[in-house]
Amino acid sequence: MLVFSVMEMSLNNFFYPKNIAVVGASNNPKKFGYELMKNIVEGGYRGKIFPINIKEEEVMGFKAAKTIKEVQEKIDLVIIAIPAGFVPQVVRECAEKGIKNIIIVSGGFSEVGEEGKKLEEEVVKIAKENDIRIIGPNCVGIQNTEVSLNASFVMRALPGSIGIITQSGALGASQIYMATSEGIGFSKFINLGNACDVSIPEAIKYLADDPQTKVIALYIEGVSRGKEFMEALKYATAKKPVVVVKAGRTEAGMRAVLSHTGSLAGRDAIFDAVFKQTGAIRVETLQQLFNVSRLIVEQPPPSGKRIAIITNAGGAGVLSADECAKHDLILTELTEETKNALRSFLPPIASVLNPVDIIASANMEVYRKTVETVIKDPNVDCLLVACVVPTFLGMKPDEHARGVVEALKNVKVRKTVIACWMAGKIAEPGKKILSENHVPAYSCPKEAVYALAKYIKYLEFKKASKNVR
Amino acid sequence: MLVFSVMEMSLNNFFYPKNIAVVGASNNPKKFGYELMKNIVEGGYRGKIFPINIKEEEVMGFKAAKTIKEVQEKIDLVIIAIPAGFVPQVVRECAEKGIKNIIIVSGGFSEVGEEGKKLEEEVVKIAKENDIRIIGPNCVGIQNTEVSLNASFVMRALPGSIGIITQSGALGASQIYMATSEGIGFSKFINLGNACDVSIPEAIKYLADDPQTKVIALYIEGVSRGKEFMEALKYATAKKPVVVVKAGRTEAGMRAVLSHTGSLAGRDAIFDAVFKQTGAIRVETLQQLFNVSRLIVEQPPPSGKRIAIITNAGGAGVLSADECAKHDLILTELTEETKNALRSFLPPIASVLNPVDIIASANMEVYRKTVETVIKDPNVDCLLVACVVPTFLGMKPDEHARGVVEALKNVKVRKTVIACWMAGKIAEPGKKILSENHVPAYSCPKEAVYALAKYIKYLEFKKASKNVR
Repeated sequence: MLVFSVMEMSLNNFFYPKNIAVVGASNNPKKFGYELMKNIVEGGYRGKIFPINIKEEEVMGFKAAKTIKEVQEKIDLVIIAIPAGFVPQVVRECAEKGIKNIIIVSGGFSEVGEEGKKLEEEVVKIAKENDIRIIGPNCVGIQNTEVSLNASFVMRALPGSIGIITQSGALGASQIYMATSEGIGFSKFINLGNACDVSIPEAIKYLADDPQTKVIALYIEGVSRGKEFMEALKYATAKKPVVVVKAGRTEAGMRAVLSHTGSLAGRDAIFDAVFKQTGAIRVETLQQLFNVSRLIVEQPPPSGKRIAIITNAGGAGVLSADECAKHDLILTELTEETKNALRSFLPPIASVLNPVDIIASANMEVYRKTVETVIKDPNVDCLLVACVVPTFLGMKPDEHARGVVEALKNVKVRKTVIACWMAGKIAEPGKKILSENHVPAYSCPKEAVYALAKYIKYLEFKKASKNVR
Repeated sequence: MLVFSVMEMSLNNFFYPKNIAVVGASNNPKKFGYELMKNIVEGGYRGKIFPINIKEEEVMGFKAAKTIKEVQEKIDLVIIAIPAGFVPQVVRECAEKGIKNIIIVSGGFSEVGEEGKKLEEEVVKIAKENDIRIIGPNCVGIQNTEVSLNASFVMRALPGSIGIITQSGALGASQIYMATSEGIGFSKFINLGNACDVSIPEAIKYLADDPQTKVIALYIEGVSRGKEFMEALKYATAKKPVVVVKAGRTEAGMRAVLSHTGSLAGRDAIFDAVFKQTGAIRVETLQQLFNVSRLIVEQPPPSGKRIAIITNAGGAGVLSADECAKHDLILTELTEETKNALRSFLPPIASVLNPVDIIASANMEVYRKTVETVIKDPNVDCLLVACVVPTFLGMKPDEHARGVVEALKNVKVRKTVIACWMAGKIAEPGKKILSENHVPAYSCPKEAVYALAKYIKYLEFKKASKNVR
């Protein structure tokens, strides 16, 4: 336990540094040291920043030092963005200055062959001898939105509760882009690159203990320390959901992994077993990774699997019902009271069975009333509201979403609500309103039900494993 | 054969009418007769339009008649949008005037119970006795972009080569919205509603013979005439691909179908067998329906299943490779010549294996050169170009797509090319450029490879069934 809390503290210094030195910080937009410095500055980091550059007097308005040693103050975090060959020397200088946390973003290490491997080993040796923790090399860096720290090459994430650990910097970045489009934020972003020191299991445990993180989203291709990985997952899933994409499932994928991260992907069946055993939520695509994660951070956990579907298009109801059945969700029987209440305001050709089909003429008011009525039904654990946004009868493309949001404000019941807003770009104003009000809005019944079903599976696992104890 | 060509001709009158009478045309925006009239007028229909309204003198600038009979000229197509109870009388007047084609958009027929059913039977009886063909009732109508005819409640589709038949008006509409967002068009749009006369099998055969239609996209929930349906599919797939979503796969879905279109969904295994036997391409979601259809109309058919992947992010390569393997596509071995050519301009840490990983620094020029080089490789049948749109090093979000498009213009080889542009909204400018240049751009490797694999399956079916003959 002592070892663990020391480790924790040392990772904390990466994410909550009081100041940062950027080795290789540059005014030249063609250099990675420029990009990194820019992201830290524009990200709004509030600690001191020390650019280190042999040639420049100042970088982006900050006085530059020629070397780390020139900086008078104690430095919490050093980020290195210079050619690989020069890195060991800088790490040595860091050691001499008593620095304990270094992120090496530079590439040119074990990922490029024997020579780079030697360089990486040299760096690790210096670090070990001096109790230095290293993230990287060959990574895009980290983010911590709680302190407006964007120490990465990646677009700044919005503040939020998804903690992401990704073995692919680019795919991690794509999650941030995707989430930002929907107004969803992250707590921490972690890309470890070659992971010569700080490892994925360690990062998982760190986020498991991070109070800002409600769900851990993981993209991995291969794992070198299988046992540690499994233990970290177990540790984490006991505290919060972990959603994971494990790529390299097939022979072809494994070969691609080998040429990408150089790690061995390992037999997929083994990973599958590990995820099942630890209760990690395995999904297939990055879209699903995001879909499930956002549901977890935005909605209360479903208390059961009895679902009600509200739709303005019969076809969307049918597709949704199919997906629910496929995932063992139960299309609930609404109470007579609910049905009668619905009949009192819905047109006669509407259906008050489940799916509740409020037909194409349903406007904001009808959506509001229907959601208010159905969500109160004691037979309903969770609610899927679908809409094929109509453009006729003078309806506005966002009004149906407004109806849903208003209903949720009016009722006191807190149940899991997801939305499926269909019809391409025309559905976007409505999706935006739903997202802003923390109702995850998907564009397809398959995606929507999938996310909900995965969340329910995790909760069932949690319940079952508690019963065992 | 004679019967068939008569039928064909009679359907042609629905889609190529020289003039149209709209019964119930209205100036009141709250009425469906307004919406319909507006869509016909704004859609740019070039034939004569006769609004029929008992109370109004003129509708949207067109002189109104009180009844069909008042119109002096011969009428090709009548569209009826008045309450159900009045419809039989109007159909009778049509019969007296010798009209042969009627679309009834009004609801209130067999879908609402016994009384409506009687009304529908009455309408069918009059029609049969007078050789009148009827589309509807309870439908959103039809479109024919070739003659700018939007006789529906649905947004006008762009002109194109996808012919769509949908049992759900709203979901059909959502396909148009989705396609329009991507600049993709349709030849015909057909929603038959209760299909009291013109049936889905008939519509399938009509589109099979329609020279404007390159692919038939079908959404169905249930089929009343199973044998005819199967024959129509066989007839159509011999001429062009048919892509189909069959909803109501599960018990829950079937119950939803019953309350939606009132049709019996039928055992899913039977449908599955029918699709396999006829070579219809079955997909699960509306997104996939669109994804596959657009690929077929936009790209030349793949000559085989040897695929090359180009990516600027290793992770995207791994995910794509996994999907290819899952669908039995072959990650091809590039020739030494290709590899050497790639090595001559790619950075040393790039991978010239397949997936070709041109790394995150790849700009427009690198994309252009790589596509030009790989597409010429004789071992390559089709190409997946992936991009996680980067935002650093001053790169523009659309430049990678421009590189691909330029490459395809420069090389003379015509091979199937699909794109996967990842990273949410930031990928959209690139996707737009690709779409405008007929390269289908998907947002996820799973979707991209799925579409390609389905297309290849259809071609293999075609080849195999030819060999049998």
